[in-house]
Amino acid sequence: MRRLQVKSSAGEYSVIVGRGAWRALQRLKGYSSVFVLTEPNLWTRWGRKFARDTCWTRVRPILAPPGESSKSLTMAGRVASELLERGADRHSLLVAFGGGVVGDLGGFVASTYMRGIDYVQAPTTVLAQVDSALGGKTAVNIRAMKNLVGTFYAPRLVVSDPDVLASLSPRAFKSGVYEAIKHGILSGPKLFGWLERKVAGLRPDDTGVLETLVARAAQVKVDVVSRDEREAALRRVLNLGHTYGHALEEATAYRRFLHGEAVAWGMLMATRLAELVGVLDPSVGKRIARVVRSVGPLPPIRGLSEGKILGLLPRDKKAVGGKIHWVLPEGIGKVRVTSDVPDAAVATAFREVQRGVWND
Amino acid sequence: MRRLQVKSSAGEYSVIVGRGAWRALQRLKGYSSVFVLTEPNLWTRWGRKFARDTCWTRVRPILAPPGESSKSLTMAGRVASELLERGADRHSLLVAFGGGVVGDLGGFVASTYMRGIDYVQAPTTVLAQVDSALGGKTAVNIRAMKNLVGTFYAPRLVVSDPDVLASLSPRAFKSGVYEAIKHGILSGPKLFGWLERKVAGLRPDDTGVLETLVARAAQVKVDVVSRDEREAALRRVLNLGHTYGHALEEATAYRRFLHGEAVAWGMLMATRLAELVGVLDPSVGKRIARVVRSVGPLPPIRGLSEGKILGLLPRDKKAVGGKIHWVLPEGIGKVRVTSDVPDAAVATAFREVQRGVWND
Repeated sequence: MRRLQVKSSAGEYSVIVGRGAWRALQRLKGYSSVFVLTEPNLWTRWGRKFARDTCWTRVRPILAPPGESSKSLTMAGRVASELLERGADRHSLLVAFGGGVVGDLGGFVASTYMRGIDYVQAPTTVLAQVDSALGGKTAVNIRAMKNLVGTFYAPRLVVSDPDVLASLSPRAFKSGVYEAIKHGILSGPKLFGWLERKVAGLRPDDTGVLETLVARAAQVKVDVVSRDEREAALRRVLNLGHTYGHALEEATAYRRFLHGEAVAWGMLMATRLAELVGVLDPSVGKRIARVVRSVGPLPPIRGLSEGKILGLLPRDKKAVGGKIHWVLPEGIGKVRVTSDVPDAAVATAFREVQRGVWND
Repeated sequence: MRRLQVKSSAGEYSVIVGRGAWRALQRLKGYSSVFVLTEPNLWTRWGRKFARDTCWTRVRPILAPPGESSKSLTMAGRVASELLERGADRHSLLVAFGGGVVGDLGGFVASTYMRGIDYVQAPTTVLAQVDSALGGKTAVNIRAMKNLVGTFYAPRLVVSDPDVLASLSPRAFKSGVYEAIKHGILSGPKLFGWLERKVAGLRPDDTGVLETLVARAAQVKVDVVSRDEREAALRRVLNLGHTYGHALEEATAYRRFLHGEAVAWGMLMATRLAELVGVLDPSVGKRIARVVRSVGPLPPIRGLSEGKILGLLPRDKKAVGGKIHWVLPEGIGKVRVTSDVPDAAVATAFREVQRGVWND
């Protein structure tokens, strides 16, 4: 069992990673009631173990349909309604038990129900364990705009048990591994080298390896957000692969790619872009491409219109007339955030990766 | 012009009260854009003065329909959508220009749009100027439950111009004066005595008197919330009159009474209750009744079922099986918060005020 510490403006909290991590919740005392926001199939599979590990005999699940459409104000209102009907008060605890959608929605509800109740993140996907459950950002989507409405609100505790990953679909599993690779690139040779050795053929039930992967990849995010909870320059490095990635997701109406898959394509393109603008040695680019490819095949991007994708590259939404903030690897453990990238190189990087003519 | 200082956990902010208070917004610089959340008729009447006073030439109003039904997650989502469409970014400013509904809704949107942007409260009713715009609570209603979802989020500034009160309907105006009287009872003989002399016959366009009334009544709330932003025991005193009042509002589906009118009835009943349980001298009860009555006639309560009202008395929603927290005046400037009140006295106080047999 490993314990990471997050320092946030809302206070410090721990991230417990390891088999049996849910047992750490036994120490949380004094709540008038405990509610679990989760998804139906997930709860059917893991609810009993959760009750056993936590020794919470009267845990009451609140079920949200799976999928991004649950991350809405409408669903937040429904969850709040259900909490009220079932007697949740200001001293209740809400556990967000699920992937990124449940975590973001649950955190948002917790931060606003009666103006804020305590909550716990119990992430159940690789993606959530290494990324989205960490950092105290909560959010819902407004129409097409992801995460437009949300809060900064620190959980009481994050508990990540790698056992739960065993029931992930291969595709959902791999999608999270791509995000872990992203953290490896940000972190340095030690974690990246370890990933190069471990990622190929990694399976959802390789619990021992996954415990290490989650703990080490989560540490990268914890380090970044502890220094910069409110996302200024530093937190931006976490967007490696997300610039092209977001455009790919949006161009396909969020239907073709899982988030991590789009980020994987985005990392390949950003890596090639870094080579093209001369900040990355091609031998390192090759290593990055190899480890990403070693996870397995990605959904194809052949048919996508280059013009459409490039037109959708996200500009800084926090500033009028915002520029594109490119996060470019300069090496393993070193990235540069820059807006100074020629359009031609952006197009070339996309095209070469799309056509499979670069490190394919 | 008077300036009050609020000390909140989110930082200090000022409340500017006086004719021309909106001019204080000229000092707010550096925002990428300014949006005003308001109601159509209100903006038609006062928008031009607001633009003139603030020197903001490109203020963009976002209109919400008047009435409590706008205090919803649905409306919050619509306002966020409109902000996005019109280019609001993290460096935009939102001004909540209106009464309690606009203030609570605008504060909620500001606290969650892109995880929080700056906002200003520009309250336009007596009620909002002396009460709801102060204290950093934002909220929307979920179905029947008022303020179930919300945040604590301090405004950048509160600007209260008494001139704007001149366009209030006599009824809305009086409704706010009752809340000012509540603050007078909480405050002490000085403010209460001043209200005894000034309230009878007070009109929405008595701007000079209203400036003093708003500044002094607002100071009472500022003092309380500065000591107890998150509503523990101390903030509860502000609920004087609200226990019976909420029950009256709920029993009539929030249609018969304006909030301040229900609170006025509630203050009369709580005052009689304080006499009945022996904590208030009847001569003081008489003074309280007289100043409340001097504002003008209240909507009748004759037809309301005693059993229904008493069954709806709000229990502490923040604790399971919560008790009723009675706020009872013990004198001018002194209240007691207690749960130890016999049911029979609660019923008698209601009945005597309803039947007009006490200080009518």
